[in-house]
Order: sequence, then structure tokens, then C-alpha cells
Amino acid sequence: MITCSAPGKVYLFGEHAVVYGEPAIACAINRRISTSIELVSSGKTRVDAMGKRLNCNSEEFKYACCAVQTVKRLFETDFGAEITIRSQLPSRQGLGSSAAVTVSTIKALAECLGIELENEAVAKIGHQVETAVQGRASPADTFVSSTGGVVFIEQTTTSHLSPLNIPIIIGATGIERSTSDVIASVARMKQKYPSLVTDILSSMGDVTRLGKQKLADEDFVGLGELMNINQGLLESIGVSDDALSRLVYAARTAGALGAKITGAGRGGCVLALAQDGNVKKVSQAIVMQDAQVLNAAFSNLGLQTE
Amino acid sequence: MITCSAPGKVYLFGEHAVVYGEPAIACAINRRISTSIELVSSGKTRVDAMGKRLNCNSEEFKYACCAVQTVKRLFETDFGAEITIRSQLPSRQGLGSSAAVTVSTIKALAECLGIELENEAVAKIGHQVETAVQGRASPADTFVSSTGGVVFIEQTTTSHLSPLNIPIIIGATGIERSTSDVIASVARMKQKYPSLVTDILSSMGDVTRLGKQKLADEDFVGLGELMNINQGLLESIGVSDDALSRLVYAARTAGALGAKITGAGRGGCVLALAQDGNVKKVSQAIVMQDAQVLNAAFSNLGLQTE
Repeated sequence: MITCSAPGKVYLFGEHAVVYGEPAIACAINRRISTSIELVSSGKTRVDAMGKRLNCNSEEFKYACCAVQTVKRLFETDFGAEITIRSQLPSRQGLGSSAAVTVSTIKALAECLGIELENEAVAKIGHQVETAVQGRASPADTFVSSTGGVVFIEQTTTSHLSPLNIPIIIGATGIERSTSDVIASVARMKQKYPSLVTDILSSMGDVTRLGKQKLADEDFVGLGELMNINQGLLESIGVSDDALSRLVYAARTAGALGAKITGAGRGGCVLALAQDGNVKKVSQAIVMQDAQVLNAAFSNLGLQTE
Repeated sequence: MITCSAPGKVYLFGEHAVVYGEPAIACAINRRISTSIELVSSGKTRVDAMGKRLNCNSEEFKYACCAVQTVKRLFETDFGAEITIRSQLPSRQGLGSSAAVTVSTIKALAECLGIELENEAVAKIGHQVETAVQGRASPADTFVSSTGGVVFIEQTTTSHLSPLNIPIIIGATGIERSTSDVIASVARMKQKYPSLVTDILSSMGDVTRLGKQKLADEDFVGLGELMNINQGLLESIGVSDDALSRLVYAARTAGALGAKITGAGRGGCVLALAQDGNVKKVSQAIVMQDAQVLNAAFSNLGLQTE
């Protein structure tokens, strides 16, 4: 049995805009998904998580099975697989659990099959899987989960930025949402107001570029300010909601340097940038809004075999 | 004694952006301020409101007194005045109370002095007064309060759009704010991120132009959608806050077609566009957030002598 694990991620800037070719900055976090695989002769794929057999409608099942099909197709081979997933990431909360399941499954399969795959190659295959399952996907998701660290994404180019050492707090609403539904709603709005929405997405791109500079300067106050601007732009394209907005304001009021949605929005999580002195206060403010605080930190650890 | 009254107003689109030359749409409402004036020989100006003598730091006092000084200067005359203000508008809540005090004072003074002034001329003098008190002011505020109706403002040009017959609900946080402080904070942000903030203000201008078309088409669903986009853009320039955001989401959740800040923001009011069937539900949702619901409607009635 081979076990591979991969990190979840947060978007510091640029979710949604990245779907339309604008740049984004995503960061791996220290909460991971582990996938253990044992090849079997039956030809069937079975996926377990939390000690239970997953049905074929569950998120994890879809991505893991599509990863299996894709590996079979690309490497012209056939096999059955017993897959066991252990997750530190809530699913459908915008923390990249689907990318982490996908790349850890691909990597573990490759190891089982004796195929050598660099992490970046896993990311590319993973992007095919995500595109097949979701219809449209950013290459960033599987790249970040494969390579770890802080990643600047622009169109099909990805590059690592310096590691980021500042406390973050993730507030999870617990409201599940479908990434593809939210992405489709933005596409509809863009179709209805093409020039306006293109300009707003382009402003998000500008925020990301300015944010990249703030990261280089280690100007965390400026970074937080730009996260808040990004949040407003996300509000304008309709991907925030009451619960997310409350968490954003709770975090800011408690002293967070910045707070915004991370991921597709309309449910899912909020990312707050804290300071060493106010992590507890910001966490408590989020808990007071009936949300779950996930202990997490930025992480440079990508996909790895355990 | 001469009494003149003038309406308050809401911004359907474009507050803040209008300060930077982008278009805006403002609408007079049926809540008014009445100013009664009696000229006296003493040479002093005294301002009463709600049966009390106002001190010289109150908003109403500043605008009324500056209106008196401006009229004295423009018409090369001198007089004392006893001014009594009765208001249906909460002050410092972004509903145009300062413009309404200003234009009703100027009009009543002109009547007392036997000077004939068209409402549009009053608006222009009123703009001088607002600029003197605030440092920077939109000509739209005094124009709308003088002429009533639905007004499209672009740079120094103002024109009336068709009357608007759809229920509105105003939710007042009761939090007072200084228009000039909020305007100054946007100016600081624009200085820090010139290209980004210019683009966001320009997107607000696009929302206003699209909104003008929706008004012409009587497409109220589209109008509400654009109000929501405008709200996000206002969030992005940092003029919303927790209390306003809660009212916005409460109204939308209760079925409002759209909801946004009206006026400078950071306190003040939210404007929600309701439908005939859900006025009560939206009002109750706002009250549940500890805000005051102001009964109001769009109005074509401008400045008038009573």
C-alpha cells in the first residue's frame, strides 16, 4: 500500500479572476489530505473515507475515480484500486480538498504502478482531472497542492514567491457549495454585463499584482488592505453572502489586517491575516459568529509520499 | 415669516464616484426639511430646531449660517435672521439633510429679500455653500434637493430621468458620520493605489450608465442587480461597514431586488429596492438588525415655498 499526501490551499488574491486569465496568488496550508492506494485485481475502484465506503456522488469519490480513469488512459494500463482517503480539510469549503484528493491519488497510483512522475507533472494531470469533473478549472489548484508554498499564477504560468510567515486564521461557515455552480453564476453575470464584469475581474488582477509587490516588501498592512479591496470586488460579482460577510467584518473588527473569502465563495471559508498579538482575539470573533476556526498556517510542503 | 421646504435624497448609483467625475443617479424622496425665516434688524443669525437654539457646531447651523453669509455676499446686502428648521430627515445619515437645509435656507432668504431665484439657481448657490462647509461637494446634492425627481448627474451636467414608481425602503443605522471624513478616506486610498481605485470608480460609472438604461426599460430586476454590484464596489473602496453590510444582506435575504449603501457610507443608511409584495418583509428584516426603517418613497417634488 502506498500513501501520498497533499496540502489544501487558500487564495490570498484572485480567485474567480484567475478563471478569466487574470493573475492570482494561492498559498498551500499545513492541513492535508492523505490517500492510500492498494492495487487489486478486480478492475473495480473502491473509495473509503473515515472508515466508510463512499458513494459515487461524493466529491472525493468523483475526483479519485476520475484520477484513476485518467491515469489508466494516459499510461494505457488497467487495474483495480482500493483507495482510502484521510482528510484534515473540510470538503466543499473552498480549501482545495478536491485538488489535494486528485494529486495525492495520481501520485499514489503512479508509485503503485512504478511510474516516476515529478510533482509538476502530477499537477498537470490533476488539472485534466479537475477540468473533466468541474467543466472548468484553474491549473493553480493542482499546482499549489503539488508543489506547496506561495504561488503566483498568471494564465498558464506558475511561479513560487518567497515563503510567507504571518499568522492566518481560516473561518469556515460550514455551508457547502459547488465550485462549478458559483463559477457558472459569475459566467452568467459576465455574459449579461460583459464590459463591466471584465473590468471588475481586471481590477482583481491589479489587486493581485499590487499584492505580489507587498509580499516582496513584507508590507503586511498593505497586504491586508489589498485583501479587503479584493473582498469588495468579490462582493460585486455576487460570490459573497451574509455568513461570509459577517466573518469578514468580525475578523477586521477584532484587528485582522485584512479578511476576505478564500475560494469560490457563497459558503465555504474566510481567510483573515492576523498579527502575532491578535490571533486569539480574531479567532474568538469568528467563533462568536457560529463559524468554525481551522488552525492552519502557510506551508511550503507540497505533495509527498509518506 | 417665509417657509420653504426641500426634499432629502437617496443615491441609486454612483455616490463617491461622482466626486471624481463619474456619473451618478440620485432621487429625491418624500421626506423633507422646512426652513422658516424671519429677517431681524440685529444683524445676527440665530438657528432653532426642534424648539432648541442650535449651537454653532451642529450640522444644520453650519449650513444655514454659511447660506446666510453666501446670500449676503452674492447680493451685497446685510441682515439678521431668525431661522427655524423642522426636519423629517435624520442628520448625518447620508440622506441629503445638509443640501435640503442649504437650499431651503437660500430660497427662504431670497423670498424674504424679494429676490427672485429659480430653483436651479438656488442649487448653484447651494453648491457653493456645501463646498465652503465641506471642502469638496457634488453639485448633484443641491440640484436634486432643489428640483426633485430622478436625476442623472455627469460632471457638471444634470438631467431628469423618468419618475420612478417602485417601493423603496431606507434602513438607517443611526450611526452618524462625517461625509467629508469618508470622502477624504477614499481620496487617501486613491492616492495610495491610483490606477486601481480609478478603475474601480470607473466601474461604478459603468454601473450608473447601465442603471440608467434599466430605468428606461423599467427593468427593476436588472436595476436591483446593478445596485448589488455597486454595493460591492463601495465595499472595495472601504466605505461600507459591519452594520451596513448586515442591513444589505438582511434586505436581500428578505426578497429585496437590490440593496446598497446610500450616501457616503460608514454609518448612515441603506437603500433597498422592494417589490409590492415584500415591502413589509424587507422592512421587518431591517428592523430585526436593530436599524430604523424610514418610510419613504421617490418624489418629484423639489424645493418649494409653503
